[in-house]
Amino acid sequence: MNMWTNPWPPLEILSDEDVEAIDATALRILEEVGHRVTYPRTLALLRDAGLAIDGDTVRFDRDFIREAVARAPSRFEMRARNPEKGFVIGDNHMVNSPTGGAPFVSDLDGGRRPGNVEDYIKLIQVAHVSPQIHCIDSGIVETMDLPVASKHLDMDYLAMRYSDKPLMTVGATYETSRDAVEMAAILFGGAQAIEQTPGVIGIVNPASPLVWDDRMLGSVHALAAANQALIVTPFLMAGTTAPVTLAGALAQWCAENLAGIAIIQTIRPGCPVVFGGYLTATDMALGQPTLGSPEWSMSILAGAQLARHYRLPFRGAGGWSSAKTVDAQAGYETVMGTWPALLSGTHFMLHAAGALESTMIISAEKMVMDLEVLRMFEWMLDPGLPVNDDTLAYDAIAKTGPGRTYLRASHTRTHHRSALYRSELASLEDVNLWRQQGSKDAQIRANERYKRMLAAYEDPGLDGAIDAELQEFIARRKEQLAKAR
Amino acid sequence: MNMWTNPWPPLEILSDEDVEAIDATALRILEEVGHRVTYPRTLALLRDAGLAIDGDTVRFDRDFIREAVARAPSRFEMRARNPEKGFVIGDNHMVNSPTGGAPFVSDLDGGRRPGNVEDYIKLIQVAHVSPQIHCIDSGIVETMDLPVASKHLDMDYLAMRYSDKPLMTVGATYETSRDAVEMAAILFGGAQAIEQTPGVIGIVNPASPLVWDDRMLGSVHALAAANQALIVTPFLMAGTTAPVTLAGALAQWCAENLAGIAIIQTIRPGCPVVFGGYLTATDMALGQPTLGSPEWSMSILAGAQLARHYRLPFRGAGGWSSAKTVDAQAGYETVMGTWPALLSGTHFMLHAAGALESTMIISAEKMVMDLEVLRMFEWMLDPGLPVNDDTLAYDAIAKTGPGRTYLRASHTRTHHRSALYRSELASLEDVNLWRQQGSKDAQIRANERYKRMLAAYEDPGLDGAIDAELQEFIARRKEQLAKAR
Repeated sequence: MNMWTNPWPPLEILSDEDVEAIDATALRILEEVGHRVTYPRTLALLRDAGLAIDGDTVRFDRDFIREAVARAPSRFEMRARNPEKGFVIGDNHMVNSPTGGAPFVSDLDGGRRPGNVEDYIKLIQVAHVSPQIHCIDSGIVETMDLPVASKHLDMDYLAMRYSDKPLMTVGATYETSRDAVEMAAILFGGAQAIEQTPGVIGIVNPASPLVWDDRMLGSVHALAAANQALIVTPFLMAGTTAPVTLAGALAQWCAENLAGIAIIQTIRPGCPVVFGGYLTATDMALGQPTLGSPEWSMSILAGAQLARHYRLPFRGAGGWSSAKTVDAQAGYETVMGTWPALLSGTHFMLHAAGALESTMIISAEKMVMDLEVLRMFEWMLDPGLPVNDDTLAYDAIAKTGPGRTYLRASHTRTHHRSALYRSELASLEDVNLWRQQGSKDAQIRANERYKRMLAAYEDPGLDGAIDAELQEFIARRKEQLAKAR
Repeated sequence: MNMWTNPWPPLEILSDEDVEAIDATALRILEEVGHRVTYPRTLALLRDAGLAIDGDTVRFDRDFIREAVARAPSRFEMRARNPEKGFVIGDNHMVNSPTGGAPFVSDLDGGRRPGNVEDYIKLIQVAHVSPQIHCIDSGIVETMDLPVASKHLDMDYLAMRYSDKPLMTVGATYETSRDAVEMAAILFGGAQAIEQTPGVIGIVNPASPLVWDDRMLGSVHALAAANQALIVTPFLMAGTTAPVTLAGALAQWCAENLAGIAIIQTIRPGCPVVFGGYLTATDMALGQPTLGSPEWSMSILAGAQLARHYRLPFRGAGGWSSAKTVDAQAGYETVMGTWPALLSGTHFMLHAAGALESTMIISAEKMVMDLEVLRMFEWMLDPGLPVNDDTLAYDAIAKTGPGRTYLRASHTRTHHRSALYRSELASLEDVNLWRQQGSKDAQIRANERYKRMLAAYEDPGLDGAIDAELQEFIARRKEQLAKAR
């Protein structure tokens, strides 16, 4: 299994009374305000389940919600085609996924440009070679140069082809998610195999506030019917799609998650789900989201605490920023968000690397910077700070004695490689050497490292028969899609 | 009183057994290895206290250490000449001080240059106008253009003159610290006043490993005799001045603190002290310290935990970096260190703003960036995440309803100013607007803000009679120092 283990107790910023009050407000929203549900299949399902439905407004009573949510597992496993790279979502584990969904891509060489297949493949390859990335996002960047109707097939395929890590699918409608399920079944040896242990994770978003629409519910039905993993992800901007006060936004966050999870558990009891979301502020003058802001830091801590209240795994996010370039803002906003991911006990960290411009772009240099940040956390989690006779080093201290240096101590020679962190990005040399070497700032250094990482990519290969079957499936589906137009 | 209150429980990364093992090793170092103590006055004092002394090697027995350390208060107050700006060091409070001791200063306009009086005054002024800075460091930058023998008088005076916040003195010998005490007595109405509540804080460093030298012990004696506050600050680089393994470095950190604090408590029982230090790694290839590294993050969490074991306030550090410019590295390293300051329950955060190049320079733009980071934390601590009927916003949620926006809700209009954080530095606008406005990265924006902060400085004034007395004292001391040469 390939994931982090997080030994830190969660930082809880809500009191028990706060949690109760937010939960009570969420249940009241579910019961009294309800949700708009615009997918007939879901409406029929919920009507059959005995819920009060008025037009397309569904009011969820609390017993229904509680019983449905209680069916969701608190942990589950994900498949990888390299069995060593599967992971657990839940317990005290954490997995990282790169940023997803950006329409633009950027690097110092080519500037900012629409997402395209060439960069898509490079970014998948870098995610594949990065030990700190556990999950591949088949929406790592948009592919504007592919036909809209069928690009989900190509993107899922390329992610399957160029990496052997677990896969998040880009599918977000009934048809596209259904295609992802079928391709995962081909990749992993059949529908039964992935029904047992999911082969694909999907992200499903309500249209906040309080709407579950037909496109997204299609995706929910396709994935849940096949027992694939779903991450429910309200996109909440306090002041726009949620109340401007965080407590109210959290209540809505819970309501939307509970509605989504209850629907999933009604379709398929026991289906693996993740309580997820994204709650940040709106800059009221600009109408823009503020990523890496303190609202985000607080909401991720509180959101994870609420997910624990419901005994559900939690999806957060981390390394993102509103900055336009890989500058100091990109650095500080990223780590403002990454610490809370660890401190909250986040199980699945989406947007863990690469996001700039509030996820409008994935930047090659930002990806490298974020991977360096993740490496630092990885080092803190393991080895952590081991205390034993060897590390306490009494003999070395006694032998070195007052006023002398440890530089040449045999204890130092024995331990320095394992004891100290080694950065792959930071400038640690003195200013004179730095100037001699071209006064390269972190963005330039990251660009150089990005190329080294790409060069280090080794193709994990793909079984020829499986590859042929996938290609055949894709060709058939493209033909159907062309006819359907 | 002017300080932060930190509501978060500390993140403890050491087990109780780890703490016991580190403490036991520290005591063994104190008893069996001992310290070199090269100041006759301290040696005499310790001999009188019954310690075993062999040449200049002092072996501290554990009962002596424990009894002496138990005399130190676990909290104390500091004076400010503006009574509203005094603060508490201890309990769950936190105060921030800018970086200190940098020989160079830098800004985008003038580049990197030796510290000088003109920049010194500007930096004191910016620290004064920054609500996130609670303590003024009279060593905020070196003043290379002042005579070495007497510049401590000018620096302490300028810090007293241009700010009315509590003061950290640059004094670091018997004479210079004695001068600081006398000037503080003039500023605060006499020796008795500052004896009751300290008027000045001094930093005292052992020459690690395990040496307390005559210069620094002179400062210890001058400050402790007058009951002024002392922060004991070993400068530990794992692999150079401390064992390469963090556990051993922590044991040495404790030993050096306990020796220093025991000396202080022997000079003056009950004297306010802070368990402090600086433990980071050495880049073994370059021989450079690595600031903002994960070793630093871990050591600050562990160091604060050890200080709690001894029931002493803890001095950490935060916003620093090994970067050479205000780039992404400066951003991410800074926040890698600032979170642990908050999470560890650090009481006094030195180097909270301005440090680049591993504290070789104070950068105007870095200072502004760090102040923005501190503002973000301040917002998280207060108001935090209040949960009540008003913030839960049920009525706003019900009234807005599914699929509509909160942008025009009356709840949003009522609360958005208080509910949301407003950045003074970040680029939040979209990329087109950002380009129209000159594609300014965070460093350029920080430069602009630095100038606005300077322009906003308002002179707090200084009582004419006190000013005259300080000037007279300084003139007399300069005359004496000139004669002594």
